[in-house]
Amino acid sequence: MAKIKLDELRRFSAKALVKAGMSEEDAATTAEVLITTDTFGVLTHGTKNLYQYILKMQAGGLDAKAAATVEGEGPSWAIINGNKAVGMVSACKAMNLAIKKAKETGVAYVGVKNSCHFGAAGYYANLAAKEGMIGLAMSNADPVIAVPNGCKKAIGTNPFSFAAPLGNGKSVFLDIALSNVAALKVIMAQEKGMAIPDTWLVDRDGLPTTDAGKFPKEASLQPMGAHKGYGLAVLVEILAAVITGAGLLSEITSWNLDLSSTNNAGHGFIAVDVSKMMPYEKFIERMNKMAQELKNAPKAKNADRIYLPGEMEWDKRSAALESGEIEITDAMAQSYIKLSELTGVEIKFN
Amino acid sequence: MAKIKLDELRRFSAKALVKAGMSEEDAATTAEVLITTDTFGVLTHGTKNLYQYILKMQAGGLDAKAAATVEGEGPSWAIINGNKAVGMVSACKAMNLAIKKAKETGVAYVGVKNSCHFGAAGYYANLAAKEGMIGLAMSNADPVIAVPNGCKKAIGTNPFSFAAPLGNGKSVFLDIALSNVAALKVIMAQEKGMAIPDTWLVDRDGLPTTDAGKFPKEASLQPMGAHKGYGLAVLVEILAAVITGAGLLSEITSWNLDLSSTNNAGHGFIAVDVSKMMPYEKFIERMNKMAQELKNAPKAKNADRIYLPGEMEWDKRSAALESGEIEITDAMAQSYIKLSELTGVEIKFN
Repeated sequence: MAKIKLDELRRFSAKALVKAGMSEEDAATTAEVLITTDTFGVLTHGTKNLYQYILKMQAGGLDAKAAATVEGEGPSWAIINGNKAVGMVSACKAMNLAIKKAKETGVAYVGVKNSCHFGAAGYYANLAAKEGMIGLAMSNADPVIAVPNGCKKAIGTNPFSFAAPLGNGKSVFLDIALSNVAALKVIMAQEKGMAIPDTWLVDRDGLPTTDAGKFPKEASLQPMGAHKGYGLAVLVEILAAVITGAGLLSEITSWNLDLSSTNNAGHGFIAVDVSKMMPYEKFIERMNKMAQELKNAPKAKNADRIYLPGEMEWDKRSAALESGEIEITDAMAQSYIKLSELTGVEIKFN
Repeated sequence: MAKIKLDELRRFSAKALVKAGMSEEDAATTAEVLITTDTFGVLTHGTKNLYQYILKMQAGGLDAKAAATVEGEGPSWAIINGNKAVGMVSACKAMNLAIKKAKETGVAYVGVKNSCHFGAAGYYANLAAKEGMIGLAMSNADPVIAVPNGCKKAIGTNPFSFAAPLGNGKSVFLDIALSNVAALKVIMAQEKGMAIPDTWLVDRDGLPTTDAGKFPKEASLQPMGAHKGYGLAVLVEILAAVITGAGLLSEITSWNLDLSSTNNAGHGFIAVDVSKMMPYEKFIERMNKMAQELKNAPKAKNADRIYLPGEMEWDKRSAALESGEIEITDAMAQSYIKLSELTGVEIKFN
């Protein structure tokens, strides 16, 4: 496995985005979202996708120069039109506006329409946590989950995330797809020729299958916890798309398989300013009381540690920040090289 | 199976609650929550528990005469002290306040501390839907789920609910526990001597077990989707308890096994006034567009219908309202009879 310095990855990413037409500021924002995601260990949603985002700009599915605009707002809400801008830029703008409004009123919701893949939802939830708030972030996506009693892809994995501060620069945070397992996990089983549990996929008859090879053409993902994950995916569809005016369900096409099409995904962000409800120090004390009780719960046989939601990710980020570098997969290295060839921006691995 | 008229159940429930010390108004509110829950078919969370609630009043764990008070509020938030009042009364007050505030600012959060079991979360989410809003309702509860790598009950099932209106008096709604399956499902398997999948319980070593008989003494529930349900349960703990000042995790004891103790559960409610964000008619049109696409998705082999979240519950409620009666289980009939003996209020089955 190759390694790359975070500074080099930041320089490379931002420069490639500027070459593709973005402003210095938007390029820096986008690079920061993707590199932070890599440091959390969520390598599927970080800089690996930069090449595809830039191909999508060139194909017309994304507008590198567009700026998101606020279309309507009130004391505790706003709707933003992404205007085909890069999802990461519109999403940061939206969560920052939710934070600003929550500082005034206590709680705020900001929705985004006419956007695209925004990377990992957890980044935006953590923007709120960094400001001492509870943050929620979610997005709809192209259908890949079959609903209960269905046999075809009918709703997206609709990522859902929250974060709440621990007072030490870290947060308790969760960032999940609402399928039982990520598509990537199915594809890994496929590559290894492994059988999978019958709770991951349904085949084209809508029946559970243990054959990973059928995905994605002849199989769909099962929702997390059957009707429970289905219901939560519908909640995300409502908060991210129904009330924002974004594309609904089948109106969303795959952002990376259909590069020239506008994606029109929608996002939803909520910020809760806890310091309105109790002194911030007391809130942090209570967060840590909860955290300690969970971490100190009696452990299962052979388990040596109980993790808080997000703790593994913070451990990885601490290690990355300390060493100033991350390990990258072959797929990541290849995508950087292709991007370097495409844009003429050089890249240096360790 | 016996049947009972809804009017009779309403009269009986309200009268028994008044005999136990509640005001006419609070008794009517509580009866309405529980009977609506029964008509949705959620018989575990409706009038069956009335007997236990009244025993808890007599034991001092609930205060029949208490009124919830607003302890702090701002434009988009409030914290309510339940003052040991019946959970259903405090929860209705809280969601109604969230609705009122959302009408002003667009979105509002109201939290409740010093409360008790509030029945089914879905009732409160539907209060918002009835007002044309999106509603979220949640509560923490006594620990019964083992967290990943844990072997003991460490966090509650922490029910989570949402509802959004369809414009026809009904809603899309979800009301779920964040365990993989409800405790009741384990107990049913126990009674039938059935083996269960290894994803329902962990034994006292924290290892998956297929022996339903171990629950609840020597086994704990698994969270829905492993780390995913664990994380969502933590989110509910934060929004319902950390920021309200309610009991946290092990501070909550079983409301019905420990009748004399104050429960101090916390609840969280969010209302989103969608009519601020787009014309209400357009919102309803988009909700129905989503609903139709989901319902019309290609069906699995042998499946004749795809349900929206909450649709089965609305079907049951329609049937109950049409016939004016519901079928009740033996356990429900027995609890009514015990309550009748306790309070001297007569009850008449069909």
